[in-house]
Amino acid sequence: MGFAFDIHARDGCARTGVLRTARGDIRTPAFMPVGTAATVKAMRPESVAETGADIVLGNTYHLMLRPGAERIARLGGLHRFMNWDRPILTDSGGFQVMSLASLRKLTEEGVRFASHIDGSKHMLSPETSMEIQRLLGSDIVMAFDECPALPANKTRIADSMRLSMRWAQRSREAFGDRPGHALFGIQQGGLEPDLRAESAEALRGIGFDGYAIGGLAVGEGQAAMFGVLDYAPDMLPADRPRYLMGVGKPDDIVGAVQRGVDMFDCVLPSRSGRTGQGWTRRGPVNLRNARHRDDPRPLDADCTCPACRSYSRAYLHHVVRADEIIGAMLLTWHNLHYYQALMAGLRVAIATGTLDAFVAEFHALRAEGDIKPLTGEGA
Amino acid sequence: MGFAFDIHARDGCARTGVLRTARGDIRTPAFMPVGTAATVKAMRPESVAETGADIVLGNTYHLMLRPGAERIARLGGLHRFMNWDRPILTDSGGFQVMSLASLRKLTEEGVRFASHIDGSKHMLSPETSMEIQRLLGSDIVMAFDECPALPANKTRIADSMRLSMRWAQRSREAFGDRPGHALFGIQQGGLEPDLRAESAEALRGIGFDGYAIGGLAVGEGQAAMFGVLDYAPDMLPADRPRYLMGVGKPDDIVGAVQRGVDMFDCVLPSRSGRTGQGWTRRGPVNLRNARHRDDPRPLDADCTCPACRSYSRAYLHHVVRADEIIGAMLLTWHNLHYYQALMAGLRVAIATGTLDAFVAEFHALRAEGDIKPLTGEGA
Repeated sequence: MGFAFDIHARDGCARTGVLRTARGDIRTPAFMPVGTAATVKAMRPESVAETGADIVLGNTYHLMLRPGAERIARLGGLHRFMNWDRPILTDSGGFQVMSLASLRKLTEEGVRFASHIDGSKHMLSPETSMEIQRLLGSDIVMAFDECPALPANKTRIADSMRLSMRWAQRSREAFGDRPGHALFGIQQGGLEPDLRAESAEALRGIGFDGYAIGGLAVGEGQAAMFGVLDYAPDMLPADRPRYLMGVGKPDDIVGAVQRGVDMFDCVLPSRSGRTGQGWTRRGPVNLRNARHRDDPRPLDADCTCPACRSYSRAYLHHVVRADEIIGAMLLTWHNLHYYQALMAGLRVAIATGTLDAFVAEFHALRAEGDIKPLTGEGA
Repeated sequence: MGFAFDIHARDGCARTGVLRTARGDIRTPAFMPVGTAATVKAMRPESVAETGADIVLGNTYHLMLRPGAERIARLGGLHRFMNWDRPILTDSGGFQVMSLASLRKLTEEGVRFASHIDGSKHMLSPETSMEIQRLLGSDIVMAFDECPALPANKTRIADSMRLSMRWAQRSREAFGDRPGHALFGIQQGGLEPDLRAESAEALRGIGFDGYAIGGLAVGEGQAAMFGVLDYAPDMLPADRPRYLMGVGKPDDIVGAVQRGVDMFDCVLPSRSGRTGQGWTRRGPVNLRNARHRDDPRPLDADCTCPACRSYSRAYLHHVVRADEIIGAMLLTWHNLHYYQALMAGLRVAIATGTLDAFVAEFHALRAEGDIKPLTGEGA
């Protein structure tokens, strides 16, 4: 049960290693592109693999509603369905049912809700979430939890966390023993150290193959998030992977890796690729901006992605302005490539004990900002 | 000036050969995918090349308005701009200014109009069209012409055709002598044999590197179009390529090749790829249809495109219904692949003198229609 997690090196609180799954190795720290509806939007899976991704994330909530978990199971599982043979992590549906569904009714049993697509009625509980994730065939299954939006009062956060811990226990029991598949628990507790400790204690008591830090990146801001990450990872078993859910911007990830986090997922690189935003070592660049209109230079001259190898900023500006699909295709590819390059850089820095220098360089380049516009004729 | 056109074989009126351009060979009969705004929509150019396309088409009207021909020239020309180093044919803008622009004013000089994007005022004439196509750097330049919508009375068609012939003369003079670039004239005359003959006579008198048949596929129907193609190609020089503009559906192309046409372009395969339609040897298939929901089979089991190699109809149905970009990417790729496979099949059939059998098989499979839905469990 579960997967071997080999930690090869540490640098401060940061770790680098490999999570060995039945479908292949996941190099950590790892960034998992989000493939919500059985596709990483605007990317072929071959291209996702080319960016260096070892694993993608699928969304239980979306997939159970469309096309349906039983249907995917009949068709051979999510890997075959979406043509991705490397590992897949699926979330439990708990977060998205609370943010997307309507007519929600939360009880000890679970959450009843109406689909945001067609209004049909559904139930998500620890037991149904485990069953859906089993039908999907995901390699890493997340325990079913509830996550209150912040700010919320401490009583609400405590009640929610304790419900999630009871659900974690039920998730563990419903998951059972599935060789080649792992189950991760999710720590909750908001910004409250004592609740985070209580949650971690409960999860360790149940026992999971990996531990997620949930309930962050929900509006509390980076300082508050780092405040929690200063102590929360240490509450979780040091020999198992730690996964910070839904994070984040590149500087969020760098700060979280420094604090001992091993895995991340976020829609940011793919979503912003569809709105004309390119992420580079110098920060985000809005390709819609007219200053790129005549710029023959690539988005990032040192980047080896197809968008930077073969296209000018002027072209990217043109296709973004003209709403051409290739704009989303190229910028999503670039952004995912940049994220994976960042993770690879972090892994090497940790392995060589040079993380501080890597992080200093990371912040220095971002502080410099994007390259200056060209001047003179044709600029 | 112009390019060598080697006709390797004939079968009835059909011919197969190679048009040798400075940027590479174009195997004929050829289908040219349409890259309106410097992109074949939803495709990377590498993928367009993988489908077997030797040449793509760019639209003068769209590109002059956005991003602008001077800008593209400053950026190194259209090939570099859009990352396509094989031949490009550009239309003259004449057809699209009449169908897309507003506030059009047609005079002997040319057409004044307002941009459909931002209302800015522009002029297209034989001279400006030649200049724009020169700035774009296109390999095959089209003469500037006017094309009336059908049905139209014969006087209107005759007047329009004679204006287009005067413009063809001015296009020829404005084009001048440009080694490595070819200029094609465009025959007009609607469905009137005497006007088609008069137009062909005028074009032959001027002298072009290739000859297009214009003014068809504008609502007259296939029978009327084939009626014209029964005589029009023969009016044009037999030793130069003949290009049927804006055509068409697979059976339009097959019929036109049988009648001696060498080149085609059409938005159909790419446009229908964005609306959930896949074109196969068995005809069009609407992937939105619920009958594909549980179908594990590929769109076409004998097709070698990425969509058919790696995805089920159920997956294509899912991503089309969910409006996922990968639906447009995969179906556009498939459709362009199918079109190129059709052209390759026609070329081989002509070369081996088996065109009649090829066409009979083409129609027989289409008459059979799409494969039947699966029955039984899981269907």
